[in-house]
Amino acid sequence: MASQERVTAAVLIIGDEILSGRTQDTNLNSIARYIAQYGVDLAEARVVGDIEEEIVTAVNHLRGRYDYLITTGGIGPTHDDITADCVAKALGVPLHEHPEIIAMMSARWGDELNAARRRMARVPEGGTLVKNPVQGPPGFQIGNVFVLAGVPSIMRGMLEDVGHRLRVGAVVISQTLRVEGSGEGVMAAPLERVARAYPDLSMGSYPFFSPAGYGSQLVIRGRDLALVEAARRDLEQALVAEGVGNITFLDSDGR
Amino acid sequence: MASQERVTAAVLIIGDEILSGRTQDTNLNSIARYIAQYGVDLAEARVVGDIEEEIVTAVNHLRGRYDYLITTGGIGPTHDDITADCVAKALGVPLHEHPEIIAMMSARWGDELNAARRRMARVPEGGTLVKNPVQGPPGFQIGNVFVLAGVPSIMRGMLEDVGHRLRVGAVVISQTLRVEGSGEGVMAAPLERVARAYPDLSMGSYPFFSPAGYGSQLVIRGRDLALVEAARRDLEQALVAEGVGNITFLDSDGR
Repeated sequence: MASQERVTAAVLIIGDEILSGRTQDTNLNSIARYIAQYGVDLAEARVVGDIEEEIVTAVNHLRGRYDYLITTGGIGPTHDDITADCVAKALGVPLHEHPEIIAMMSARWGDELNAARRRMARVPEGGTLVKNPVQGPPGFQIGNVFVLAGVPSIMRGMLEDVGHRLRVGAVVISQTLRVEGSGEGVMAAPLERVARAYPDLSMGSYPFFSPAGYGSQLVIRGRDLALVEAARRDLEQALVAEGVGNITFLDSDGR
Repeated sequence: MASQERVTAAVLIIGDEILSGRTQDTNLNSIARYIAQYGVDLAEARVVGDIEEEIVTAVNHLRGRYDYLITTGGIGPTHDDITADCVAKALGVPLHEHPEIIAMMSARWGDELNAARRRMARVPEGGTLVKNPVQGPPGFQIGNVFVLAGVPSIMRGMLEDVGHRLRVGAVVISQTLRVEGSGEGVMAAPLERVARAYPDLSMGSYPFFSPAGYGSQLVIRGRDLALVEAARRDLEQALVAEGVGNITFLDSDGR
C-alpha cells in the first residue's frame, strides 16, 4: 500500500574500475529508475574504491541516513572482492558460508568448487539471499542493505528480487515541457515564479543543444498528480506571457 | 614535473536529474580519464541533489580530504542552479558578479542580459575563470575546487582548461591480460598470489560474458612500469601453471 511519506535510498558503487575510468557505470541509473517505480527516491550516491575502510565507513553512513542502501560490485571470487567482508564488519556480524549457496555451487561445480568460489557463498549472519537469475551466485540483503553484483546485466537481474521487499512510497510523477528555440535565460524568471508558487513540487531546467536546435526541458516533479498538472499549466501560461513559444507537453515519464 | 607522490581528486556530481534516473551521468568517467593523464587519481565520487545543505557539506568534506575537487552541474541561470552559491558558502566567501563574465555576456546579449543570465556571472571572491570553449559562460576555480558545467559537451570543453592547473603526479600505468574461456574462480588463486607478491600494485579482475564467450580481464595497475611488467609476466606464468590458457596481453591503456 503506497503511503504519502517519502521513502529514500542511497546507492554505493564499489570498484576501482569505475574511479579509474576503465568502466562507465550504468548501475546508478538502472537502480534510480527501478526504485522510482516503487516510490523510493534515490537521495544520494557514492563511488568508492576497493578499500575496506572506505567501504565500511560509507556503508555505515548511508544505511543510517536513508531507508535503504543498495551496493553494487565487489562480490566476485577474487581478492579484490571485499564487499561481503566490509558489510559484515560495518554491521558487526560474522560472515558465514550460506548452506543454500554452497548447495547451488556444489551442484554447479562439483570437485571444482575451490576456495575462491566458496568466497562467493559468504553472507553476513542474519542475511537473506537475493536471487540471481542471470549468472553465478546470489546477492544478499541484511537489514536495510542490499548487496548486488557489479556486472550490469547481473545487477539488473538481481534488482527484480529487491522491489517487492521495499516499503512502497508515493510514486513521483513528472511532467516535462519541451521548449525549442529559447534559451534558459528567458525561461528562468517564469520558471522561478511558478516554482515559488508550488513549494511542494520540484522544478528543474535541462538545456539541450543539437545541430537541429536548442532549448530546454522544463521538468516538474511531485507526488500529487493534480498539483503537478496545475503547475504545468501555470508554467505554460507564464512562458507564453514572457513571449516564449514552441512549447510541447511531453508525456509524463515518471522521472 | 611529475613526482612519485600520489595526487588525488574527488568528483561531486550535482543534480536531481542524475538521482531521479532522468539523465545517465557520463561526466565521472570523462573526468577520471582526463585527470589520469596528469597522474591524478580519482579517489571518490559523490552524487547529490539540488539541496544547499547537501552540496555545502559534500564540498567541504571532499575539498578537505583530497588534493582537488571537481564539481559538475548546477551553474545555469535557473533557480535550481545553486552550485556557485553553495561553493561560496562552503568556503565562507562572498559571491560577486565577475566583470569579465559580465563583459562577455553584455557583448553577447546586449539588452537581453537579464537577472537570470547575470546569475551565471557570479563567482566566489578570489575565484579565477575556467574557459568555456563550447557554449555559454565560463566555470571557475577557487582554491582546490573546480566548478564545471553539467552538460557533458560543455563539461569536457571546460576540462581542457583544468589539466594545466593540476599538480602532476606519477601517471598510473595499467596492463591487462584478457583471458577467454576460464571463469574467475580458477584465476582467483594465482591472481591473489601475485597480488600479494606486489603490494605496491593494485590488481583487479573484471569478468565479461557475451554470446561470443566469457572470461575476465585481469588488470595490473601501478606507477612503476618495470614493476607492472614484472607482475604481468609473473601472473601470466602463474595462470599457465594453473592450467589456464587463451591469455592475450592487451596494450597498456593507462587505466
